[in-house]
Amino acid sequence: MALETLQKEQTLKMRKQLIGQSCRLFFSHDPVKIVRAQAQYLYDENGMQYLDCISNVQHVGHCHPHITQAAAAQMELLNANTRFLHDNIVQYAKRLAATLPKKLSVFYFVNSGSEANDLALRLARQYTQNEDVIVLDHAYHGHLTSLIDISPYKFRKLAGQKEWVHVAPVPDTYRGLYRADHPNPAEAYANTVKNLIDEVHKKGRKISSFFVESLPSVAGQIILPLGYFQKVAQYIRAAGGVFVADEVQTGFGRVGSHFWAFQLHGEDFCPDIVTMGKPMGNGHPLSCVVTTEEIAAAFTDNGVEYFNTFGGNPVSCAIGLAVLDVIEKEDLRSNAVHVGNHLMKLLRELQAKHQIIGDVRGVGLFVGFELVKDRVDLTPATEETALLVRRLKEKYICLSTDGPGENVVKFKPPMCFSKQDAERVTEHIDQILTEIEGGL
Amino acid sequence: MALETLQKEQTLKMRKQLIGQSCRLFFSHDPVKIVRAQAQYLYDENGMQYLDCISNVQHVGHCHPHITQAAAAQMELLNANTRFLHDNIVQYAKRLAATLPKKLSVFYFVNSGSEANDLALRLARQYTQNEDVIVLDHAYHGHLTSLIDISPYKFRKLAGQKEWVHVAPVPDTYRGLYRADHPNPAEAYANTVKNLIDEVHKKGRKISSFFVESLPSVAGQIILPLGYFQKVAQYIRAAGGVFVADEVQTGFGRVGSHFWAFQLHGEDFCPDIVTMGKPMGNGHPLSCVVTTEEIAAAFTDNGVEYFNTFGGNPVSCAIGLAVLDVIEKEDLRSNAVHVGNHLMKLLRELQAKHQIIGDVRGVGLFVGFELVKDRVDLTPATEETALLVRRLKEKYICLSTDGPGENVVKFKPPMCFSKQDAERVTEHIDQILTEIEGGL
Repeated sequence: MALETLQKEQTLKMRKQLIGQSCRLFFSHDPVKIVRAQAQYLYDENGMQYLDCISNVQHVGHCHPHITQAAAAQMELLNANTRFLHDNIVQYAKRLAATLPKKLSVFYFVNSGSEANDLALRLARQYTQNEDVIVLDHAYHGHLTSLIDISPYKFRKLAGQKEWVHVAPVPDTYRGLYRADHPNPAEAYANTVKNLIDEVHKKGRKISSFFVESLPSVAGQIILPLGYFQKVAQYIRAAGGVFVADEVQTGFGRVGSHFWAFQLHGEDFCPDIVTMGKPMGNGHPLSCVVTTEEIAAAFTDNGVEYFNTFGGNPVSCAIGLAVLDVIEKEDLRSNAVHVGNHLMKLLRELQAKHQIIGDVRGVGLFVGFELVKDRVDLTPATEETALLVRRLKEKYICLSTDGPGENVVKFKPPMCFSKQDAERVTEHIDQILTEIEGGL
Repeated sequence: MALETLQKEQTLKMRKQLIGQSCRLFFSHDPVKIVRAQAQYLYDENGMQYLDCISNVQHVGHCHPHITQAAAAQMELLNANTRFLHDNIVQYAKRLAATLPKKLSVFYFVNSGSEANDLALRLARQYTQNEDVIVLDHAYHGHLTSLIDISPYKFRKLAGQKEWVHVAPVPDTYRGLYRADHPNPAEAYANTVKNLIDEVHKKGRKISSFFVESLPSVAGQIILPLGYFQKVAQYIRAAGGVFVADEVQTGFGRVGSHFWAFQLHGEDFCPDIVTMGKPMGNGHPLSCVVTTEEIAAAFTDNGVEYFNTFGGNPVSCAIGLAVLDVIEKEDLRSNAVHVGNHLMKLLRELQAKHQIIGDVRGVGLFVGFELVKDRVDLTPATEETALLVRRLKEKYICLSTDGPGENVVKFKPPMCFSKQDAERVTEHIDQILTEIEGGL
């Protein structure tokens, strides 16, 4: 297969003509054409190697041979739908169940994180018979009509807030309502949800669910204060709602110490519904919703079939199983712990050196650092952040920004990211920040 | 790769425990376990071969080597997201554009027919700035929250009809409002939409779109009267709305004479948005929305990025390109014409022999026949239809039923279905109907 069939200029021209411009390119001032990839490295049409610090989808590394071989073998045998019995789907569900609290035992396989979150919304509403949803500010749960409605990150720029959606403050202990100096930020932020529930009830409305990314990502790589989930779950359940943990970005061992990011909150916490996506198929469209027997039973009892044409097919499940194999065999969770800690240490050294780095935070290979104009008012250094990412790209390093102030640089690399990679990228950051601070 | 790792009973037991029961099995009284497939044949765990008359997703045949090889080759090279430039997505869009009217030129790649229809809804609403949707009765446009709302087939059993949804009668010339004896059913049915628009306007509401399957499938394999689309499009556009053709089931040459089923209505008709899905990736989760430059521009102008994590990735597009190759190289559209016509002829011979066959209809390899208790009142022979399909399964033939009376047997086989296959299945239908009519 040819690596490139068109000149880059021609590709770009056709892209502008043929693909909706709402589908944006990275580095839009000078987009990158990537023709092959391996592990944590991307290669452009000239053979130049880029270090990939952002592809959380290619979780166990780009083009991992164990995944591609498993996919090819199953594609040659069978790719039917789930109306026929097949071993792969049940074997895969069993393997996933082993990573989860026992109570989360009924699976629905779908094609994208958005499909998973939409189904979670349907499950929550069917089970509770309530409509309203509480979400965190700046949250993003997907591109579908129903999910834009529960994503302040999107609906604030589009149709606006629906009457059935209620927004709680994001528990950001760096620049949020309650900060690191607060004696109990988990409790304080949970109380904001409790108060919001009271307001909803006063309006005569009822809560179906609390949707939350286990680690809010577009909100700026936020690490939630531990204990927050337990308290919120208690309030939500008391109001008749269910707790939905969106693990689309954070699942499958990215946090290192645990397979799921919600598990950071301790063994006494279990969501009612968990959604999974991006890393699940290492790039193959594969996602999932898992819930309790009770919630699944309520959905079955409505008497209406749920059929997802591609969801849970033998090829998708073979790929999902192969991803789990690699996470285990290559001990990628340990790698996430060691490399993530090393990266955080290096970034904190840079923070000591560069005033512009206001905060460094992360867990495992979910890491972010925030650039601020000053360390008192925490004014986002938005332009500097954009400049840093552009200059890193010139050094063949792919990073990206997020957060409401677009001033958080986020790391979410393939899980095979190495200590050497962490050293390479932080050395360049050091150099570029020195240049930026020097007015270059 | 082992064909089977669990005993069938164990697979079934685990399926019941681990997979949501809303995800139903074919032949639920005695489900079939399929372990491999080739072309139009499925094989169970004992090596028994089933003739597959229903897998419209495995469009060019199960496990076609050209598709699996293209997928494997691209998976080994690269599977990144569309924020990087890549040739496959633009080459694929160009190939698809060549099958469509010139005005449909801007593509969005997504993962499922449901994602495509949801995006079509977003595009229509953004462009028209109107909310309301007109759909046909018994229509099914997908499993997402937004699509259940526009699918009478689903919402009648679930949340009910939303105030922004309006249902027009399905132009079924066999058992609908206006039948084959009507002088101009196309015009008469189009007038029902016109009148509905007037009612909507009287309520002070505004139409964003008319959503229609180019050939309604779950409504009972309906062949719409030609000219209906032109007239409806005229009324919808006059009301400020757009025409969305849902080709998720019917596209990619299934109708034989044309690449898209909407093209049956003639060259003077062009939808404003077309959605595609099922057959597009031969089983791989791949779908698409295509629209006009004007509608795409309105969506871009809202200033909000549309990012679909897996949509349009190099592997999906390589598979999509390979599917187009096979349709062309194996001249599957001609096969659909010849085999479809042969099948219809054989079914019409059976209709002459068996009073229970009330109607035979179809185009290309989109075919249905309807069982009725009598040919005057057209009372659906629901039990007999179910019995026929069960007995066919005992003869190792997979068919399924649809229609509001569950009395339409539908054919939508892989496009390599042969005349011999058509003869085999109709011989068995003849025999079983003779038994059923004899009270067996």
